[in-house]
Amino acid sequence: MLFREPRCLPVIWLDDRLVPESEASVSYSDRGYYFGDGIYEVFRVYGGHLYEADAHYDRLERSAREIGLGLPYARTEIDDILRLLLEREHVQNGTVYMQVTRGVAPRSHPFPADAKPVMLAYCSDAARPIHMMQTGISAVTRPDIRWLRCDLKTLNLLGSVLAKQEAADQGAGDVILHRDGIVTECSASNLMIVKDGAVLTHPADHLILHGITRAVVLRLAGEQGIHARERAFTLEELRAADEAFLTGTTMEIVPIVQIDGLPVGVGEPGPVTRRLQQSFEATIPS
Amino acid sequence: MLFREPRCLPVIWLDDRLVPESEASVSYSDRGYYFGDGIYEVFRVYGGHLYEADAHYDRLERSAREIGLGLPYARTEIDDILRLLLEREHVQNGTVYMQVTRGVAPRSHPFPADAKPVMLAYCSDAARPIHMMQTGISAVTRPDIRWLRCDLKTLNLLGSVLAKQEAADQGAGDVILHRDGIVTECSASNLMIVKDGAVLTHPADHLILHGITRAVVLRLAGEQGIHARERAFTLEELRAADEAFLTGTTMEIVPIVQIDGLPVGVGEPGPVTRRLQQSFEATIPS
Repeated sequence: MLFREPRCLPVIWLDDRLVPESEASVSYSDRGYYFGDGIYEVFRVYGGHLYEADAHYDRLERSAREIGLGLPYARTEIDDILRLLLEREHVQNGTVYMQVTRGVAPRSHPFPADAKPVMLAYCSDAARPIHMMQTGISAVTRPDIRWLRCDLKTLNLLGSVLAKQEAADQGAGDVILHRDGIVTECSASNLMIVKDGAVLTHPADHLILHGITRAVVLRLAGEQGIHARERAFTLEELRAADEAFLTGTTMEIVPIVQIDGLPVGVGEPGPVTRRLQQSFEATIPS
Repeated sequence: MLFREPRCLPVIWLDDRLVPESEASVSYSDRGYYFGDGIYEVFRVYGGHLYEADAHYDRLERSAREIGLGLPYARTEIDDILRLLLEREHVQNGTVYMQVTRGVAPRSHPFPADAKPVMLAYCSDAARPIHMMQTGISAVTRPDIRWLRCDLKTLNLLGSVLAKQEAADQGAGDVILHRDGIVTECSASNLMIVKDGAVLTHPADHLILHGITRAVVLRLAGEQGIHARERAFTLEELRAADEAFLTGTTMEIVPIVQIDGLPVGVGEPGPVTRRLQQSFEATIPS
């Protein structure tokens, strides 16, 4: 803990120190700005605590390793920083955003010899999306044009940005992406469908993010005796599904009740989705 | 022209004004930093003049349009800014780098309602890569894992960064990318091969950058009576080529004399490559 003062301006962790939000600026030569050369995580905060923190740290370390980026701090140091931010900002229910870029260097594609990775982190209040969880959202299907390492949580997010904007332009809540008819995931969350009581979701390979809520839901399904399988499925199977829902850190479990203008099943959140939502609720510390 | 003063610190155009390089910082909430949500161009400067400026502006405007980004200035205004930078920095032979991001906004994937795009631009001295142009470079082949809009010059460059680093790790000059055996381009330049006197290069579709030097070279080939065709070719055709070379704004025309450890043709820059280099040379204003 560095110091404690009356709360005034929001503070942000940036490159080795806490700074007031208004002073949080980065070099134009940060490789995050030139190349999107960095990785990130978004944590859920419930009751002042990081939810599934170890799973997020595991994924952060994996993303870093896979793009050859050395994290600037050990896991325990990052954890201390995030907890310091939560305490300073008095966030009880919200999110922590953090990213690490490869640092500042003259613009050139190969990894720079001497750049020091730059970490940014801050927390925000954020309510759970109760209304969406209860009533569900609509989605549209679109080709998945992203790169072939969607398992890495990198700052190269333009494909997801454009997909999400397409959904907004269509008045839909999200996009369901597919590669040549094989469904992958949503723009910033994983997708699951239910058919005849069984849950189906794309395997955790290079084509989807290995979602932490996804893993929690698969575990809960097992505990609930709900058959769940990781197998790629087609657009046709999606359209024939009884239920569909997305999973994500900030969204938790949100039913998808309409796809491309047609109802999913009866067009309402289904019983398996509801059971999983209830099971998930029970994992949240109060 | 804003003002003129003795040259001291390098200046940079950032968000509506010239600033000293040391003060050029951007908000941590710039969408360029979160999402790589922006586009860029690199111009060649010969004799104090922008080379093929209109082609670069055309491509910039196309990239912007395709990602739904409104450029903050008209083409003539951007041109004035770049020329101002060149004049201020007295750059005769070098490059101008410029990028435009979608601006500063709280982190959320869809396009923000009110963000103002942020333009960054600066120029640098840069010598022509004479040695590489004369002796050629080696390359290694790798799968092309980038997204499916490589025709857009966006800031989502991690795929190219990782490819270029793989080349460096292998002691090679560059990477030749392929999708399932179909050759696309290099990490930051286009690729052409020569077989039986004819030039072959991937069509300008969504899988490659529509390189400006590429277009110049195709035009020059036509003028020289060299048969040139835009057609996808395989790794096998690459390995059987008589000559290979890359084309790019800063690299111009660089022979590739070795691929995956094996010589291309006789392992030296070939006659068609040489003729095209000479023709290109003649287009450069002295």
